[in-house]
Amino acid sequence: MPKIEFNSIGMIYSPFKNLKGMPIQPIGGEGVKGEIHINEGLKNGLKDLNGFSHLILIYYLHKSKGFSLEVTPFLDNNTHGVFATRSPKRPNSVGLSIVKLDSIEDNILYISNMDILDETPLLDIKPYVPQLNGIKNDSIKIGWFEEKHFSAKDKLSDARFI
Amino acid sequence: MPKIEFNSIGMIYSPFKNLKGMPIQPIGGEGVKGEIHINEGLKNGLKDLNGFSHLILIYYLHKSKGFSLEVTPFLDNNTHGVFATRSPKRPNSVGLSIVKLDSIEDNILYISNMDILDETPLLDIKPYVPQLNGIKNDSIKIGWFEEKHFSAKDKLSDARFI
Repeated sequence: MPKIEFNSIGMIYSPFKNLKGMPIQPIGGEGVKGEIHINEGLKNGLKDLNGFSHLILIYYLHKSKGFSLEVTPFLDNNTHGVFATRSPKRPNSVGLSIVKLDSIEDNILYISNMDILDETPLLDIKPYVPQLNGIKNDSIKIGWFEEKHFSAKDKLSDARFI
Repeated sequence: MPKIEFNSIGMIYSPFKNLKGMPIQPIGGEGVKGEIHINEGLKNGLKDLNGFSHLILIYYLHKSKGFSLEVTPFLDNNTHGVFATRSPKRPNSVGLSIVKLDSIEDNILYISNMDILDETPLLDIKPYVPQLNGIKNDSIKIGWFEEKHFSAKDKLSDARFI
């Protein structure tokens, strides 16, 4: 199968210059502000995006080198398959975060609740519309996160995935 | 900026052979069953994934050719910026669905609630753990979907994005 090629649609700017010491999930980035600068030629694609409170960002984990099939994630001392974690050491370096949209001015999006490294290339923005998934809360099972997710709010990254 | 390159990590199989007449969102694919065949060399990355009820799939919209910055989505008669929609005609052909995981056998994932075309190349799997986003339901605004999302369950795709 041939390689699948994408281009950056813009750049994400955040206060986090270093993979160490970052929030590990959006819940840990509460209140952290950043900006997205969309490429000038694509800004008409932002029309009506200002009606949404939250955005799904899909981005390139540009500092992640190589991958591991089994990892010990920040929230646990046990190893898990990488697809059962949010570790950046994935076969494809694709990141996903849901952030709060504060405002849009021209081609610049002002966002909050960030767990994203500075100067991360953005691949796509999708509106966050949980109604479209049709998932009932009481049907959700979250595997090994069940006992661990409570600490995601306060935990910061260490150097293990650098 | 150089191209960003990814490789398929596996293949998604579904009953939908044609872009026309598909569910337009996971909520419309309720009960529709499919399979994901993960590349043999990556199957150790699936360890412990069977504890999760739902998975986030990130995939390549392999039949989407070109893009439009403003589109008229299936759910509306008005145009919106493409980033304010789930239209497949995006600058980067990246798709996202949350599906139900029924079971895993060796390198095959049996899944339900699909709105994905047959033979779609998979880029990444992430566990669905809504607790990590820390979003309160009453803080969510969904823009133009507010009056429209109710019909996503029953609407099927037409030929507009082929």
